[in-house]
Amino acid sequence: MDTRQVELVASYADMLQVGSRNMQNFALLKEVGQSKKPVLLKRGMMATVEELLQAAEYILSQGNSQLILCERGIRTFETSTRNTLDLSAVLALKQRTQLPVIVDPSHGTGIRRMVPAMSKAALAVGADGLIIEVHHQPENALCDGPQSLYHEEFSVLMHDLRLISPVVGKIIKTCNPIT
Amino acid sequence: MDTRQVELVASYADMLQVGSRNMQNFALLKEVGQSKKPVLLKRGMMATVEELLQAAEYILSQGNSQLILCERGIRTFETSTRNTLDLSAVLALKQRTQLPVIVDPSHGTGIRRMVPAMSKAALAVGADGLIIEVHHQPENALCDGPQSLYHEEFSVLMHDLRLISPVVGKIIKTCNPIT
Amino acid sequence: MDTRQVELVASYADMLQVGSRNMQNFALLKEVGQSKKPVLLKRGMMATVEELLQAAEYILSQGNSQLILCERGIRTFETSTRNTLDLSAVLALKQRTQLPVIVDPSHGTGIRRMVPAMSKAALAVGADGLIIEVHHQPENALCDGPQSLYHEEFSVLMHDLRLISPVVGKIIKTCNPIT
Amino acid sequence: MDTRQVELVASYADMLQVGSRNMQNFALLKEVGQSKKPVLLKRGMMATVEELLQAAEYILSQGNSQLILCERGIRTFETSTRNTLDLSAVLALKQRTQLPVIVDPSHGTGIRRMVPAMSKAALAVGADGLIIEVHHQPENALCDGPQSLYHEEFSVLMHDLRLISPVVGKIIKTCNPIT
Repeated sequence: MDTRQVELVASYADMLQVGSRNMQNFALLKEVGQSKKPVLLKRGMMATVEELLQAAEYILSQGNSQLILCERGIRTFETSTRNTLDLSAVLALKQRTQLPVIVDPSHGTGIRRMVPAMSKAALAVGADGLIIEVHHQPENALCDGPQSLYHEEFSVLMHDLRLISPVVGKIIKTCNPIT
Repeated sequence: MDTRQVELVASYADMLQVGSRNMQNFALLKEVGQSKKPVLLKRGMMATVEELLQAAEYILSQGNSQLILCERGIRTFETSTRNTLDLSAVLALKQRTQLPVIVDPSHGTGIRRMVPAMSKAALAVGADGLIIEVHHQPENALCDGPQSLYHEEFSVLMHDLRLISPVVGKIIKTCNPIT
Repeated sequence: MDTRQVELVASYADMLQVGSRNMQNFALLKEVGQSKKPVLLKRGMMATVEELLQAAEYILSQGNSQLILCERGIRTFETSTRNTLDLSAVLALKQRTQLPVIVDPSHGTGIRRMVPAMSKAALAVGADGLIIEVHHQPENALCDGPQSLYHEEFSVLMHDLRLISPVVGKIIKTCNPIT
Repeated sequence: MDTRQVELVASYADMLQVGSRNMQNFALLKEVGQSKKPVLLKRGMMATVEELLQAAEYILSQGNSQLILCERGIRTFETSTRNTLDLSAVLALKQRTQLPVIVDPSHGTGIRRMVPAMSKAALAVGADGLIIEVHHQPENALCDGPQSLYHEEFSVLMHDLRLISPVVGKIIKTCNPIT
């Protein structure tokens, strides 16, 4: 998303997402900060928790407080996953901000078979939400197929999440996505 | 633990632990591989999942198959925690080995207030066990006090873990530690 | 620099710099790719050599081939320097592209007393240029004072660089900077 | 090298090397600290400069002050080289210790064609020595062939190093290696 496109996108979308590669695109942060739409700000893959909070300030300082932070994996030396999902970052963030913090296990691992377990772990650690990629035919997906859940996997996962949620004081609401 | 001390330690202890800084001390790995005692092998803070499995081979190849692997945090650029607990490593390990895999959230975070949440996340991801530091007076502990749970915190945590365990197909057994 | 500012900046400046935090700001890369001015593209502090080359493609594909790549330090676990200047990246880049590659030891270390030695090392490894911060009163600099050389230090450094340059087949030309 | 082998090795070798994977093998450090032979201590591939200095203390505290430190590359996210040779570590070490500091560009890069340039850079940054692998037939080497120089490459490199050395106040002495 380019700064020049924010207004156009905001006229159609319900929410604006600033992707991890744009986390320190300060011109874009200020631009979405002037929008009236809620913003999802993803942590850069080599950004510290401190830097994510500083990036959030660019948005908040423009008057937009409808902001959600998202942990989506950091770059480490480990190669068995695309990135290393840093679940303790949820705790570090929550100690320092009131903003909601969600987790993206799909991009964080890049591997379908890891997504359900990491989703449960993210809920158990106290995340306020999850952003999970689902596709009815992942093998035919135009992008991110290898990390997308099949519908049945997603149903099983939601069932498990509902069982864990009361233990960590969360309530799972469901809204209908694009139909 | 030095290679020369393995026999002595094994004559007293129920289990031998190879700490993370010794994960690639190949002489020590072979020595504990010749012991009859079970071994806990901790992932080096700079070791990949692949290297942990290779280190395990040094022990297994000597005939000792009573081996447990332990994720305890890796070194990253993030500074808000002492290490970054890599919970997806549990999944990566379990895909490639039948050995039990446990998690150490106390050393993995180094921060008491993070231990309960990361313990729940480790269980939710499918860890076979947890190694948690508890102290009746952490502020007076000779070492690792800042990451040790108070007794009451540990009781609450165990309660929560018992609620999560059936969701991930685990049964929590309790043995009495040193009394 | 925002995409909307490229044209304005290009009307005044002799060269456009895309800073490390913007290395994956693809809208900006395409915009400077349409400019007629030469571009300095700095490696992101979390970017691989491969990703830097991919970012360069965004600029080249728009028709602007007046492009210089710059190594300026990557993020590692080491804390004694702000970043770790990756001099082998110069070699990795030169094996895969004909574009000139320069090094920024000022931002790469963040520490004045390391700049001269790292500058000499960068030349010795084969860098095509250096970008060095100099200030007549670093202690009063508005920014980056702690990494700026005093004039005398810069003179001594230039003297040493002239001695090393023929060994690595380079010729040092000097142009007068802002006066 | 095992702690039990130090005495035997010391009876034959002129110098003891503690490899990077043993940098925090404290039993071994103490053992070589009691030897009368000089010791080469290599930085662990994920050890900070601070930790290398702490490891050195284990040796020094046992009375052995014939100690040389060696930078040999650290583990980062970059994959175009096996490790990232951290030449600024030479400067960070020299600011805090009087011990000689050398550099290992062969292990640090793992790639033959990078060794000459990184050797020159290491000298230019002020290293007190280099440890370079050379083989008359690298393609037939039992180990580390891909990073070993051919004799002719080594000769050319030595020629270049002699030209750079006076610029950084060093004198290159040559002793004959194994003959």
